[in-house]
Amino acid sequence: MVRGRIIRLSVRDVRFPTSLGGHGSDAMHTDPDYSAAYVVIETDAGDGLAGCGITFTLGKGTEVVVCAVNALAHHVLHKDLRDIVGDFRGFYRQLTSDGQLRWIGPKKGVVHLATAAVLNAVWDLWAKQEGKPLWKLLVDMDPRTLLSCIDFRYITDVLTEEDAYEEQMLTHGYPAYTTSCAWLGYSDDTLKQRCAEALKDGWTRFKVKVGADLQDDMRRCRLIRDMIGPEKTLMMDANQRWDVPEAVEWMSKLAEFKPLWIEEPTSPDDILGHATISKALVPLGIGVATGEQCHNRVIFKQLLQANALQFLQIDSCRLGSVNENLSVILMAKKFGIPVCPHAGGVGLCELVQHLIIFDYIAVSASLKNRMCEYVDHLHEHFKYPVTIKQASYMPPKAAGYSTEMKEESVKKHQYPEGEVWKRLHAAHEN
Amino acid sequence: MVRGRIIRLSVRDVRFPTSLGGHGSDAMHTDPDYSAAYVVIETDAGDGLAGCGITFTLGKGTEVVVCAVNALAHHVLHKDLRDIVGDFRGFYRQLTSDGQLRWIGPKKGVVHLATAAVLNAVWDLWAKQEGKPLWKLLVDMDPRTLLSCIDFRYITDVLTEEDAYEEQMLTHGYPAYTTSCAWLGYSDDTLKQRCAEALKDGWTRFKVKVGADLQDDMRRCRLIRDMIGPEKTLMMDANQRWDVPEAVEWMSKLAEFKPLWIEEPTSPDDILGHATISKALVPLGIGVATGEQCHNRVIFKQLLQANALQFLQIDSCRLGSVNENLSVILMAKKFGIPVCPHAGGVGLCELVQHLIIFDYIAVSASLKNRMCEYVDHLHEHFKYPVTIKQASYMPPKAAGYSTEMKEESVKKHQYPEGEVWKRLHAAHEN
Repeated sequence: MVRGRIIRLSVRDVRFPTSLGGHGSDAMHTDPDYSAAYVVIETDAGDGLAGCGITFTLGKGTEVVVCAVNALAHHVLHKDLRDIVGDFRGFYRQLTSDGQLRWIGPKKGVVHLATAAVLNAVWDLWAKQEGKPLWKLLVDMDPRTLLSCIDFRYITDVLTEEDAYEEQMLTHGYPAYTTSCAWLGYSDDTLKQRCAEALKDGWTRFKVKVGADLQDDMRRCRLIRDMIGPEKTLMMDANQRWDVPEAVEWMSKLAEFKPLWIEEPTSPDDILGHATISKALVPLGIGVATGEQCHNRVIFKQLLQANALQFLQIDSCRLGSVNENLSVILMAKKFGIPVCPHAGGVGLCELVQHLIIFDYIAVSASLKNRMCEYVDHLHEHFKYPVTIKQASYMPPKAAGYSTEMKEESVKKHQYPEGEVWKRLHAAHEN
Repeated sequence: MVRGRIIRLSVRDVRFPTSLGGHGSDAMHTDPDYSAAYVVIETDAGDGLAGCGITFTLGKGTEVVVCAVNALAHHVLHKDLRDIVGDFRGFYRQLTSDGQLRWIGPKKGVVHLATAAVLNAVWDLWAKQEGKPLWKLLVDMDPRTLLSCIDFRYITDVLTEEDAYEEQMLTHGYPAYTTSCAWLGYSDDTLKQRCAEALKDGWTRFKVKVGADLQDDMRRCRLIRDMIGPEKTLMMDANQRWDVPEAVEWMSKLAEFKPLWIEEPTSPDDILGHATISKALVPLGIGVATGEQCHNRVIFKQLLQANALQFLQIDSCRLGSVNENLSVILMAKKFGIPVCPHAGGVGLCELVQHLIIFDYIAVSASLKNRMCEYVDHLHEHFKYPVTIKQASYMPPKAAGYSTEMKEESVKKHQYPEGEVWKRLHAAHEN
């Protein structure tokens, strides 16, 4: 079914001026403009199908990721799609181990985000050609083929191809939690109003941003806990604001609000720091969650080895696409740690729902302590936006990886020439 | 003495076609073109001084780093140099924690390399204005000012500003070792010839690249050990080629050649992996060395906490310039681990000699197990190239950070429009 030579790769800098409304604000990212480097690949197959891939960014710097995508393009152009997916591990390694380009990573930061965008487009195209949503392509794939997409280099000390296994298949909606109620930049009134609306819509799991000011955190956490009651689930997210001892001290003060987890308490690179925090918070009944800025499978491997987290948060656009996320999902299974993906951003919900549904059906077969983040904005720019029912992600049905944006949205938000940005820049100058 | 507002920042993509001669080749980087993103900042002080900063790259991707420097430029332009160095910690954090830009790092990969290039230029300008080589500026600085350049965020669990200390001052040349004899791409004849020359020049410490093929490694190691004799020091470098169990197995086979250390045995992100390897190799008398691709102070902190290395290899162009290297040098001192910097590349020897001389005079006060890498090429492109005598780095005397390149060299090697590249591309097309 796979067909065609890749004859065109385009990449665009698409930005949404979300900072104007305080959406997405937290203790470290105070004014994000949710953005994406948006890749489209086309083949000579004549079937009219294009593969769309994104990686998520926060505004400034998107142009750097665009530049990196262009630097990777020669690895993709003129390749036959059959050759790519036929030796996907080899192709993955070629992309991430280019003898010259790897120096500016390796496997992290800008080049790895660009790799994700390119590979997301390849996966989208593959799934579209097979006429299946990506999660179904993965679920239907025979285990050997699935494992042949994974680069096991640097993780064979905890997981080898021989650890391969298959699990029985099930189908359900996947539980979601909402981060839309309590961004750090929201006023108490906005927070209350959003919380009331979410309760009405059936949400039972809520996340609040913390970390900038302890008194302010206590007030906001009390407000939310009072509104949602003692039974519903509350998570907290510090977005890397603290040092290790500070994280323990701060969370001891917030323990009275019974958070299920504290997310990103310190540097995303600090495996041993997370382990220290984790150990200190266990007696308080608080777990540690992290992963949205873990840059590759080697960091996840160590977080698992060091008992540094109780909830593992993969990101569909920071790791090297489906290939690398598969390796992390399998390692999490081996260590018995639930995968609760990071989402929100631009398109992160659309993409990651495929991975989490695959995880449930084919790997974990459990919903215990498992849920996926949900944020309620920017979905209208996607051709196949997520469907949420009763606070659950419903399995997407359209073929592909749900990565495709509406052309009109892309044009309007392209930076700096799209009309939205032209207007904002003009307003700024007046 | 510090003066002037920064009114101009330029950045250029400079590449040297080193892959043509196999220089710099190793098990993971088979065809590097040693390159640099080269930054120059100028002020309105009217003193004719410019700050030059570089970061080292391997060819492709340099344009991505250039793009990232441009994305950072607005943090530097129109700033008064007094304000920058007067609150250097604040400025460092502003550059590395931009609310939008940090997402594409954070503090790693392309954006962090770009940060290094920009800050290297600031340090060069500061030292030039003070009329001192950088190491002397650092050595003369009062400890409080020195510490005020360091961002302690994320490392306060092992080092705080209160740990500050001062050591007595001494002066000597700094021992060097050579990597110029045994690149992986060299034939046995080239290797023998280079080794004989180095012995004649007084070198007593040698490094050999390994990791691609065990039989080949054994032949090459035997050849070198036979040439240098049993008393001289031999180090090995695998450039991240192995998985953890593979590294232990492979090095057990190479132990007979008595290497002092094995460098980069596995992924630079794998702290626990390095600890495992380190523990396994101690009985064989082999230490673990790593650091040239450790992307920030948080990774170094953990390598020290986990007893994962016996030799710490800072890099002047990957960490966030002098500021972040200072924090690592101080942590290494606290853990009693010798700093043996990575050098070579483009300008890495020129820059890092300042840091290592500072380390010796003001921090470690010891040469035990300490030495700095040296590679014998591309120095001719620098205005103040290193001076090596009796296999030792002699303290540089010119004011600044030795970062300044000859304008003629830059012009000739600018990519893609410099004459060297125009000629190569024309040759390639014919």
